[in-house]
Amino acid sequence: MSKYSLGLDFGTLSVRAILLDSESGEIKATSVSEYAHGIMSTTFLDGSPLPDATALQHPRDYLESMLAVIGECLSSSGVAPECITGIGVDFTASTILPVLEDGTPLCFTKEFENEPHAYVKLWKHHAAQAEADAINALAKRTEAPWLDRYGGTISCEFLFPKVLEILNKAPAVYDRTFRFIEAGDWIVWMLTGKETHSVCTTGFKAMWNEESGYPDDAFFTALHPALHGIIGTKISTEVIKLSQRAGTVTKEMAAQTGLLEGTPVAPAFIDAHAALPALGITQAGELLMIIGTSSCHILLGDKKTNVPGISGYVKDGIIDGLYAFEAGQTSVGDSFEWFVSNCLPAAYAEDAREQGINVHKYLRKKASLLPPGAGGLLALDWFNGNRTPYVNGDLSGVILGLNLNTRPEQIYRALIESTAYGTKRILDLYEQNGIVIDKIYAAGGIAEKDEMLMQIYADVLGREIRLSGTAQACAYGSALLGAVNENGFPSLADAACKLKQISARSYQPNPQNTKAYAKLYREYVVLSEFFANSENKTMTFLRELK
Amino acid sequence: MSKYSLGLDFGTLSVRAILLDSESGEIKATSVSEYAHGIMSTTFLDGSPLPDATALQHPRDYLESMLAVIGECLSSSGVAPECITGIGVDFTASTILPVLEDGTPLCFTKEFENEPHAYVKLWKHHAAQAEADAINALAKRTEAPWLDRYGGTISCEFLFPKVLEILNKAPAVYDRTFRFIEAGDWIVWMLTGKETHSVCTTGFKAMWNEESGYPDDAFFTALHPALHGIIGTKISTEVIKLSQRAGTVTKEMAAQTGLLEGTPVAPAFIDAHAALPALGITQAGELLMIIGTSSCHILLGDKKTNVPGISGYVKDGIIDGLYAFEAGQTSVGDSFEWFVSNCLPAAYAEDAREQGINVHKYLRKKASLLPPGAGGLLALDWFNGNRTPYVNGDLSGVILGLNLNTRPEQIYRALIESTAYGTKRILDLYEQNGIVIDKIYAAGGIAEKDEMLMQIYADVLGREIRLSGTAQACAYGSALLGAVNENGFPSLADAACKLKQISARSYQPNPQNTKAYAKLYREYVVLSEFFANSENKTMTFLRELK
Repeated sequence: MSKYSLGLDFGTLSVRAILLDSESGEIKATSVSEYAHGIMSTTFLDGSPLPDATALQHPRDYLESMLAVIGECLSSSGVAPECITGIGVDFTASTILPVLEDGTPLCFTKEFENEPHAYVKLWKHHAAQAEADAINALAKRTEAPWLDRYGGTISCEFLFPKVLEILNKAPAVYDRTFRFIEAGDWIVWMLTGKETHSVCTTGFKAMWNEESGYPDDAFFTALHPALHGIIGTKISTEVIKLSQRAGTVTKEMAAQTGLLEGTPVAPAFIDAHAALPALGITQAGELLMIIGTSSCHILLGDKKTNVPGISGYVKDGIIDGLYAFEAGQTSVGDSFEWFVSNCLPAAYAEDAREQGINVHKYLRKKASLLPPGAGGLLALDWFNGNRTPYVNGDLSGVILGLNLNTRPEQIYRALIESTAYGTKRILDLYEQNGIVIDKIYAAGGIAEKDEMLMQIYADVLGREIRLSGTAQACAYGSALLGAVNENGFPSLADAACKLKQISARSYQPNPQNTKAYAKLYREYVVLSEFFANSENKTMTFLRELK
Repeated sequence: MSKYSLGLDFGTLSVRAILLDSESGEIKATSVSEYAHGIMSTTFLDGSPLPDATALQHPRDYLESMLAVIGECLSSSGVAPECITGIGVDFTASTILPVLEDGTPLCFTKEFENEPHAYVKLWKHHAAQAEADAINALAKRTEAPWLDRYGGTISCEFLFPKVLEILNKAPAVYDRTFRFIEAGDWIVWMLTGKETHSVCTTGFKAMWNEESGYPDDAFFTALHPALHGIIGTKISTEVIKLSQRAGTVTKEMAAQTGLLEGTPVAPAFIDAHAALPALGITQAGELLMIIGTSSCHILLGDKKTNVPGISGYVKDGIIDGLYAFEAGQTSVGDSFEWFVSNCLPAAYAEDAREQGINVHKYLRKKASLLPPGAGGLLALDWFNGNRTPYVNGDLSGVILGLNLNTRPEQIYRALIESTAYGTKRILDLYEQNGIVIDKIYAAGGIAEKDEMLMQIYADVLGREIRLSGTAQACAYGSALLGAVNENGFPSLADAACKLKQISARSYQPNPQNTKAYAKLYREYVVLSEFFANSENKTMTFLRELK
């Protein structure tokens, strides 16, 4: 009898499940279910307007979509529930919600069902920038020792800015909250009936580490008197490693899902981070780029290293015994989509339609004929600000070298190249801080689909890039974590080594292009330093005009 | 019996004639004729390819188009030839050709009819950049005193780079040439049978002035030994003022045109410069912006002033007793056209078609709703390099402040605003060098048609802008110069004051917008200085990638 593991990957718009044969590595079933309410960003449930930069979700959607995908995996595969030996869960982060003592979301109560602040604040909810600013200012002033772990700046996407936003804007919600919790940890709680907090979500998003825990109470009290005592009350101090078991499926949840009561459940992973084991990335010096609408760059290292400008690092954050480092680019595929939506001439759109191909493919065909530098263009990839290394949302995109002969495909290629330079900047930053990068891997929608982009990345980086063998690396990685227990693998690293999914295809740099790009990259860095320099107020000024 | 003056305006693609009642100011007839061969830029007459940056014309086209428009003006107006008391001619410049002793173009001879270098080199023929570089390098090395009159740099559009190009590339043409002559002066020669060279063409385009004439022979000999003795031989030293008469229509030309033999002909004007008298601009401190595909800015001043970066200045160049200063922007309407051809999304093109309006008008409708700064964008208007103040063809366009919400109309407005900043830069340059600007006028296709642009210019400059009352200011100004003689006005200034064509409409700056633009302009200057600084090689590097 085969053993199976269930991976549940809670993305931004849907949950995806895969049922993995944890002996052969075969995927027996997959299922996707979109969240009924999607993202509430402009209007609330009742149609009332929401403030700028809001991004809320309804936690009931997670439960309903989860039941749907588990049900479909079981029925379509015909796998008996007793053969499922474990469950792994990953979730976007920091995606948080306030809950009661038994884990019931505040928004499920009559009292708070009409209160937007009682709902889930999605990772890309950016309305807590003022709170993030306050945290950063206080941390700098008090020389908070934990700040350097997060590259010197806390993002407004983190947990505490969102908690402070609730306290500032909806104190009744804050008061009634028993726990603020990551949605990933909450789903595990719902499955197991037991509250846990994973080292991955807590370390990367809640300013916690294994040595000193959370920032001290003096810090929180200075930030806001009402935060006095928050750690240990509204924020749990129980943090478990990924290698621990979070719990087992409750009788009630077994009845709802069709799973067996007592099925082991692993601690929550952050979605992007779950992709590493899927590609067999378990060694220090291995880096994964997840290239999609935005990109992130997760690297394993064997020693504690502060890297200015990165998003953070966590010991045991992915693989026990290693440090996981995270950095990111805020706009990659989003920039190409912006171009196609706003700058594509009618003649090109028509031509693509006649040829029966997608406009991106059409543009790539033209752009692939151009040399490095797209015939004289250079862009800065800051169409949604810059995360690493400047952590500055005021920064904006630039296109340089335009002339009367510039063609759309040149701009399109220059935008792609700019994201490659942005990636090189991040890899350089890691290496300049003493972290060796031995192997580079890529996953994500764009990495799989866009061969021209991947070749440009290999050329710009001057490095081989290996490719994921599955389009569902996050769900697959969660299934691997689910398979780590007394019935399965002894460790995630062991599971990852045995069942990794790597494409036979890899991208090799073209040395001539690498040489050409080295010069362009130098100019990219000069431009970046000019505009991101704190003395240069141009982009901040332009941002204020918005 | 009324008196009439004929104005002949030789533009880049066609000649336009107007027959002006020089007593009432009424335009009795107009006519336009396109040059049969247009511009030869990629292929020669026989279909053979031409080198990059070439722009040739056929001088026979000028004669044939001229006969056509004079004929049509006479026949459509019914004005008797004896009522035409004078003729004025303006021409693009520096547009030059090599001719024989009797003015016959070398390209009319069997020997040279297949030699591209025997044809007219149009003002925008840019293939003599290497020759211009050589002239500039030698002039700087030898501290040539005339260089400062031309802002410190000679353009490749000037006469001598083109002559040197002929010597370098077609020495047989150089050897056989009796005179190198501006096409405007050549047309006057063809009408009158008498060779003259106008102070306007010679002063602005041939490094000549009234005090010291041409550069000395030592300079030319050092530039190329074969240039020894060129002044006084292949280059005439006879230069006449605009207030002098060039000659009268010959018997032969009278027979061909239907004009009366003996009709007075004025010296040749440069086309843009002829527009000043049309608007009544005759006083020091008055500036005319001619806003079209590119723009130029001609200012009258009462004293000799070197202004770094301008195109040049000439005493008596337009109005006797005053200095005429010229500066320019290389890409204005051309940039907007580039945007529409390369960046206009299909949805906008369709929407404009449905509304039955031109896409520029459609974009302006949307762009006019935006505030100064187009919602957070700043551009550099260097889509065809920069003429004033940097005289640098390597410079290129920049768009800054792009983000995922940036819309096409924002970019379009930012491009328009960038040309306004470029104009302010030029006006500031004049004023920083001590030349007062009292009144600003505008003419040209865009000035007439684009109210949004004109309001932005008024706002950016913080100045009232008066508008031409005629769409044919150049031809009208030539007709005014034609009317200056014993049968008409005593001086051009007199004719201009009496018959000026000024629109009742003028643009007044909105003080609030002017304040907002002052901040944007400061950023524009910072960016300009950053990229145009000779230490900054980014744009030169990008240019070399082309």
